[in-house]
Amino acid sequence: MKKVSVGVDIGGTNTAIGVVDELGHVLTKDNISTPDHGNINQYIDELAGAIKTLITNAKLMNENIEIVGIGVGAPNGNYYTGTIEYAPNLSFKGVVQVVRLLRGHFPDLNAIALTNDANAAAIGEMIYGGAKGMKNFVMYTLGTGVGSGIVVNGDLVYGHDGFAGECGHTTLIPGGRICGCGAHGHLEAYCSAPGMKRTAFELLAKYNAVDSPLAKYSYNELTSKMIYDAAMDGDKVANEVFELTGKYLGQGIADTIHHLSPEAIFLFGGPLAAGDLILKPTKEAMEAHLLPIFKNKIKVLPSKLEAGDAAIVGASALAWKELEK
Amino acid sequence: MKKVSVGVDIGGTNTAIGVVDELGHVLTKDNISTPDHGNINQYIDELAGAIKTLITNAKLMNENIEIVGIGVGAPNGNYYTGTIEYAPNLSFKGVVQVVRLLRGHFPDLNAIALTNDANAAAIGEMIYGGAKGMKNFVMYTLGTGVGSGIVVNGDLVYGHDGFAGECGHTTLIPGGRICGCGAHGHLEAYCSAPGMKRTAFELLAKYNAVDSPLAKYSYNELTSKMIYDAAMDGDKVANEVFELTGKYLGQGIADTIHHLSPEAIFLFGGPLAAGDLILKPTKEAMEAHLLPIFKNKIKVLPSKLEAGDAAIVGASALAWKELEK
Repeated sequence: MKKVSVGVDIGGTNTAIGVVDELGHVLTKDNISTPDHGNINQYIDELAGAIKTLITNAKLMNENIEIVGIGVGAPNGNYYTGTIEYAPNLSFKGVVQVVRLLRGHFPDLNAIALTNDANAAAIGEMIYGGAKGMKNFVMYTLGTGVGSGIVVNGDLVYGHDGFAGECGHTTLIPGGRICGCGAHGHLEAYCSAPGMKRTAFELLAKYNAVDSPLAKYSYNELTSKMIYDAAMDGDKVANEVFELTGKYLGQGIADTIHHLSPEAIFLFGGPLAAGDLILKPTKEAMEAHLLPIFKNKIKVLPSKLEAGDAAIVGASALAWKELEK
Repeated sequence: MKKVSVGVDIGGTNTAIGVVDELGHVLTKDNISTPDHGNINQYIDELAGAIKTLITNAKLMNENIEIVGIGVGAPNGNYYTGTIEYAPNLSFKGVVQVVRLLRGHFPDLNAIALTNDANAAAIGEMIYGGAKGMKNFVMYTLGTGVGSGIVVNGDLVYGHDGFAGECGHTTLIPGGRICGCGAHGHLEAYCSAPGMKRTAFELLAKYNAVDSPLAKYSYNELTSKMIYDAAMDGDKVANEVFELTGKYLGQGIADTIHHLSPEAIFLFGGPLAAGDLILKPTKEAMEAHLLPIFKNKIKVLPSKLEAGDAAIVGASALAWKELEK
């Protein structure tokens, strides 16, 4: 029998589902809408139906597979309680019992678990990716927000109440940019996709850069993809956006290292497509902030999870991790 | 039989040794000089002799005691290797094999271990103090430097190479004060005893505070004790030193919380004698920097370890912790 697990990634608009083998390969996948009606029971019924259909399809492709569990990644997902709690971008209000409801549909599966997206990505890196065999590492996910997952002694750190790993909300610059959470100067306000846009607008203003291709777009139009394209075309402003983003990120990563002394930091997300354009300034800033005992020994690595399926694959890894217990 | 452990605190000048019972009471204690000659073998011979004498004395006082182990706290102490590594304030150069040499003198004791002072304090808090029963907490020690010990799931976090828990070297203010380690803006440069003195001098200059009692002292004369006394006498500058120190510390603690989601933060050291003068601004600044999911639920508590014996008691706790394995 070939063992496989199911990964579910609950996003604001879509829920992606995949059947994933022990090597992290997606055998088959599907999408359903994450509803805007907020009725969790109805949604979980739909989700369970879609998972069952997908499993049936996977078995048609290969009748020797055995489902070992379901891992779910979701914003504000709490591993301890199996609930999504007060997720601002989902229609479910308050605390919703995702794992308990799923268990009702899959009573024979022991390994059903949920965590937030960044934690799922970290577990994915550990089970399938570049962190295989590592016992202490931290994953930063750069996207609309900045998430993180912390692994200590081979286990994800959930903290007292399940919410550990919010490195995106450490303070980089006291009194600095307003973060989406309302506080000032958080890393997320500098290193997320919107953070990079904010940096681009600051630099356009600073240099009065009328010749930059970025000068053609309104604040609401400019995307991080446009900044990336301009940087690849050699635009000075766009290149400096990556340089500053790396500088900010490196400062934050140094704080993480001083807390946890990890073997490596993994970076995941769109900006990593720029390679050394983001990695080099990140490493330089990180090293500049480190104590001598940490200098020149902590690796900063791009994630080995494939961008397209990373959320499903990361979530599926949670099921394997559960089986280790 | 009453079980006891031996705690050893290796400082730059003195090495304190104590026999400690399971409740954290020091039964008997002694001091030897930490040598300036750097000969580790000779020093460990002396230390082992002093420990044996102390054990003999403890047995004279109470013949029903049984020694379960020896815990050692030392600057740059590495738990994994049992070594002190490149400690700037000790005369031992390079990497010295403290645990291996001690084992030679105490072949019958299994629980001999070493860690740095702040980690030892955290374990002391967990075994004897206010963190009893807590699985996730962080201890900050405020003194000549700022140390920290991180506990996750009931275990001290040592990280990849044994050096985790250097929260004193997270960056509070990019480009800010030069830290003892050479980097800029680290927490230690603001919240240590010298950091408080630096804040006092900045404030004296800012307010041209000729009437402050602190204005009588040179930079080399002023101590944190003088600042404390002046604050207790109602001096405005000295009070603002505590307020700013709390503000800096609260920002750093918020970063720690965003990493680890602990149940509580414990604070240890001289400034805690000022009570709410330091605790109140610390808590306020911490709350202001936190994500909503963390607000108003994480305790900030003064350590329950007694200041005088805390280093010995903390180190002795490491032996009990070893026995749990």
